[in-house]
Amino acid sequence: MDYKILSTVKTPQDIKSLTKSELSLLCDEIRDCLIETVSNNGGHLASNLGTVELTVALHRIFDSPADAILFDVGHQSYTHKLLTGRFEKFSTIRTEGGLSGFMNPKESKHDYYVSGHSSNCISAAYGIYKAKALKGENGTAVAIVGDGAMTGGMVYEALNNIGADNSKFIVVLNDNKMSISKNVGAIARHLNKIRLKSGYHNFKFEFSKFLNSIPIIGDNLYRFFYRIKKMFKNLIYHSNIFEGLGFNYLGPVDGHDISSLENVFNIAKRQTKPVLIHVVTVKGKGYSFAESDPGTYHGVSNFNSNEGFITNADKITYSDVFGRTLCQIAEKDDSVCAITAAMSAGTGLVNFEKKFKDRFFDVGIAEEHAVTFSAGLAKGGMKPYFAVYSSFLQRGFDQLVHDVAISELPVRFCIDRAGFVGEDGCTHQGLFDVSFLTSVPNMTVYSPTSFDELEKILLNSLSFNSPLAIRYPRGTEKCNSFEYTGNDFDVYKNDSKTAVITYGRTAFNALDAVNTEKNADFIKINKIYPICEDLCNALLGYDKILFFEESIKSGSIGEKLLCKLNFKGFKGNFVHIAVDNQFVDCASTSAQLRKYNLDTESIIEKLRGN
Amino acid sequence: MDYKILSTVKTPQDIKSLTKSELSLLCDEIRDCLIETVSNNGGHLASNLGTVELTVALHRIFDSPADAILFDVGHQSYTHKLLTGRFEKFSTIRTEGGLSGFMNPKESKHDYYVSGHSSNCISAAYGIYKAKALKGENGTAVAIVGDGAMTGGMVYEALNNIGADNSKFIVVLNDNKMSISKNVGAIARHLNKIRLKSGYHNFKFEFSKFLNSIPIIGDNLYRFFYRIKKMFKNLIYHSNIFEGLGFNYLGPVDGHDISSLENVFNIAKRQTKPVLIHVVTVKGKGYSFAESDPGTYHGVSNFNSNEGFITNADKITYSDVFGRTLCQIAEKDDSVCAITAAMSAGTGLVNFEKKFKDRFFDVGIAEEHAVTFSAGLAKGGMKPYFAVYSSFLQRGFDQLVHDVAISELPVRFCIDRAGFVGEDGCTHQGLFDVSFLTSVPNMTVYSPTSFDELEKILLNSLSFNSPLAIRYPRGTEKCNSFEYTGNDFDVYKNDSKTAVITYGRTAFNALDAVNTEKNADFIKINKIYPICEDLCNALLGYDKILFFEESIKSGSIGEKLLCKLNFKGFKGNFVHIAVDNQFVDCASTSAQLRKYNLDTESIIEKLRGN
Repeated sequence: MDYKILSTVKTPQDIKSLTKSELSLLCDEIRDCLIETVSNNGGHLASNLGTVELTVALHRIFDSPADAILFDVGHQSYTHKLLTGRFEKFSTIRTEGGLSGFMNPKESKHDYYVSGHSSNCISAAYGIYKAKALKGENGTAVAIVGDGAMTGGMVYEALNNIGADNSKFIVVLNDNKMSISKNVGAIARHLNKIRLKSGYHNFKFEFSKFLNSIPIIGDNLYRFFYRIKKMFKNLIYHSNIFEGLGFNYLGPVDGHDISSLENVFNIAKRQTKPVLIHVVTVKGKGYSFAESDPGTYHGVSNFNSNEGFITNADKITYSDVFGRTLCQIAEKDDSVCAITAAMSAGTGLVNFEKKFKDRFFDVGIAEEHAVTFSAGLAKGGMKPYFAVYSSFLQRGFDQLVHDVAISELPVRFCIDRAGFVGEDGCTHQGLFDVSFLTSVPNMTVYSPTSFDELEKILLNSLSFNSPLAIRYPRGTEKCNSFEYTGNDFDVYKNDSKTAVITYGRTAFNALDAVNTEKNADFIKINKIYPICEDLCNALLGYDKILFFEESIKSGSIGEKLLCKLNFKGFKGNFVHIAVDNQFVDCASTSAQLRKYNLDTESIIEKLRGN
Repeated sequence: MDYKILSTVKTPQDIKSLTKSELSLLCDEIRDCLIETVSNNGGHLASNLGTVELTVALHRIFDSPADAILFDVGHQSYTHKLLTGRFEKFSTIRTEGGLSGFMNPKESKHDYYVSGHSSNCISAAYGIYKAKALKGENGTAVAIVGDGAMTGGMVYEALNNIGADNSKFIVVLNDNKMSISKNVGAIARHLNKIRLKSGYHNFKFEFSKFLNSIPIIGDNLYRFFYRIKKMFKNLIYHSNIFEGLGFNYLGPVDGHDISSLENVFNIAKRQTKPVLIHVVTVKGKGYSFAESDPGTYHGVSNFNSNEGFITNADKITYSDVFGRTLCQIAEKDDSVCAITAAMSAGTGLVNFEKKFKDRFFDVGIAEEHAVTFSAGLAKGGMKPYFAVYSSFLQRGFDQLVHDVAISELPVRFCIDRAGFVGEDGCTHQGLFDVSFLTSVPNMTVYSPTSFDELEKILLNSLSFNSPLAIRYPRGTEKCNSFEYTGNDFDVYKNDSKTAVITYGRTAFNALDAVNTEKNADFIKINKIYPICEDLCNALLGYDKILFFEESIKSGSIGEKLLCKLNFKGFKGNFVHIAVDNQFVDCASTSAQLRKYNLDTESIIEKLRGN
């Protein structure tokens, strides 16, 4: 592919002098580059195709890096990367050692923060803005947030804080009517209303002039008109949520028309108080496959760009097994509810949503609310299953402690993407849930290895009476070696005084290694917390224990097990292999398992005494 | 005191048939009882005085427990307790084994959830409401939230979810213009505007009738008027944030007029979509000391009810030392910023706020935003100090991982109320921060024992270049035994092969015990994480280690230290005394230390081999 203009863009300065027709060509080239690259590497496509003109216009009107431009979540920052000196490296995106699929300050001075989770960008940008102001530096900060992110409470915490400040701070609301799936909640409806009233904001301006020109005569009439006039003015100037929160509202603006965008950004720069610019974009814009099915093209693995992305229906995932099983139990038990925080498809709940509409709750990107709402459902006698990615459950930690665990409510946390997640990188790794879940009293945690175990544990969870977490990895089962036994842990004997012990996905590799070397017993934990007394007692008989764990080490099961063994007088050798307290960057999951010595070969090496 | 009516109220049914004058007398008796009890036991006063009539009216119009009545935070639930069969036990409030100062289902079927933290009540109530609806049960759920709680993002997550649902769900906004201190942010301003437009909601109704009566004639005129009419209708019906979020808004209502309150609750019950009732109350109502200084009377220790509460200025607290020292360093270094989540007074920042207005940020009850905003400030080159209670920082866990630690930004977390907090009970204990902070890569954690150490560690923190937590207990220093040494840990030798080891407040007791028994060395850790290699090496020489820790055990420093020692080949006896994975109920701090074997006597007992 020939990128005539794009290849000449080394810094955002290079696009400032382009003509209208050159800009149009640049946008075409960017779209070609996005489709080409994502079809090769996988990644986020639809959101990036939707923000090409928006990003170009931002970089023409603002001066990055003096002006900080922050994209919320950052999966829509590909165009920003292309315009800030990363075109040549762009083909490495989402590969080990390559560009990140999100914003990353280590990559470029144009990336002001590490993005990945949703709804935090306004807070970060406002901090940067205030720092600049306090230090008397030039430049401002612009936060670009999607309408999906508007369902996250953190956005409101930030708007509430900023709206009272009278700062010249700019928020760009990129409204494509979607988060990953279609957006939910009252905010989505509110935005829709604003969009429908499109003409009305110009009218508003004209009308306020008209109101000022009304002559006021007579005394009673005076008071009546004065009252109406004042009220209308108030109404007119506070007619949507953002204005209520103290922001000047500008929009809606066509997010694919560079001139309109430039105009509105210039107006925003001249305001003396916080501004929210409402930009309407089309997710997937310019690629017919993605425009007609933006959900599928939100995040994809590699595909043929001429044929479009074809879902490989053969590859059943843990998410699929979860969703299928939950439907099964919901059929039998009408108190079963499913809760998701805008991740219906990702967590495997699409069929549940169709079949059990009344008992399905997509609450938006709102993990805090999701956890406490689930607690309320449980209190009311329902059986809530909150399906959530491990790294996103971090948002609900306080609610898990405060609203679920203290009251011992049987909320079932179905934790997807537990462990390494591959290419999404450090913000998405599911490496902390074991530590934070097991620090909370009254929690029980299962970590199934196989589909069969996941299914059976879910079936049994129906009668569970206290907080429960079931955590399982991204993707598909390595093989079907493990049938559900119903035990808290299983022992595979080789008559050895050495034990290899693990749980979850790593069990596949550990069993392979033990079967190869045959010099150790293999113990697979199923219920990982609380740690069973019987497990400890069984382990006391070993001279050497090798514990392999796909989790951050600090606060892990290995640490807790060793402490319990110590208490019971274990004096053997305990070797713990886990992720030693660092963030894990982008790579394939198998590369990550290898890097942290959790693949079959590494376990074999340890068994050979290396 | 004679409680003629109150003493006859065994269930909320008992107040339904009272006459107007009896109700007035009941409210007086409730206020007397509140003042008498809180002046004896300490507790929350101003918020309870402000919600007497509101609670009486709620219990007259709704049928608890069939209708679930949930108070956010719950420190304003004292009247609710008095009306739901807990009058006789009321004198035990906030004492060991007595009534909780918050809502607690173990206490009464009228308490639907464990309250304590802010802004979660709507989510819980909505869960209960949906459960009732799905099960076809009678009754509804009512969530009572303060205007302070409206600064927490979780409220918006819930409103966004509910507003799109068209449920008959009722939220009561108790607007007293305060959280603990004066409220901040755009929402506070918005509520103020609504209050000022008080007459306008009646007018709104009348005006919409008037609009409907405008005749429309002619063609051009028709289009013009149609447009105006439609726009005004939209404006009129969506004129505040709550209406924008899909709620019917009713109010503002005088929260001390029982008849008005009953009227509006009856109207609310007849609505077919979610309703928000805006009730205006006066914090401290009916007790002159509290009305004129509601901040002081938010939460108090015991006092003479005739003289009012007198702050004991002699008792300097860790919070005071923190605030004083931060002012000191802010004087020298103009990049020092203080951030608080509506806890300026509680965390000792009142003077900082006055002296360094530009660098002081009260962001509202918004810990998520506070953490990421601090990250932004740090990214922009400032030195942010976020002062926060341990248990409230749980709300910012994801932001701490995602926005601070990954980028290694030097945000200083100044963690007050670390460890036992006494009478506030299980929701407020600072027992989890050690576990969750130390599971996060790149974190450094200090736990000073003395004022001197806190001060010096703060002074040194100026030059710190990565995420830092400094955690210290509630209240005052036990004695001034520990001067700052600058060491990561200090050893007090007795030439023993036994070591007593601890950190933070427990060090006072441990040193006393060791000085009494003289049969063990004493080691005090100052930098508790990462665990120092030198500390481990020093400990390898001991046969027996007794580790005392005022933290939840799971994920604690003791566990991590033992694992490191094991790795280094330690084969001695390691005894770990910590809070063994349970929630800690209300009692005095000294009783809590005793119960969990962290007082001097318990440590002595352990040293004597018991």
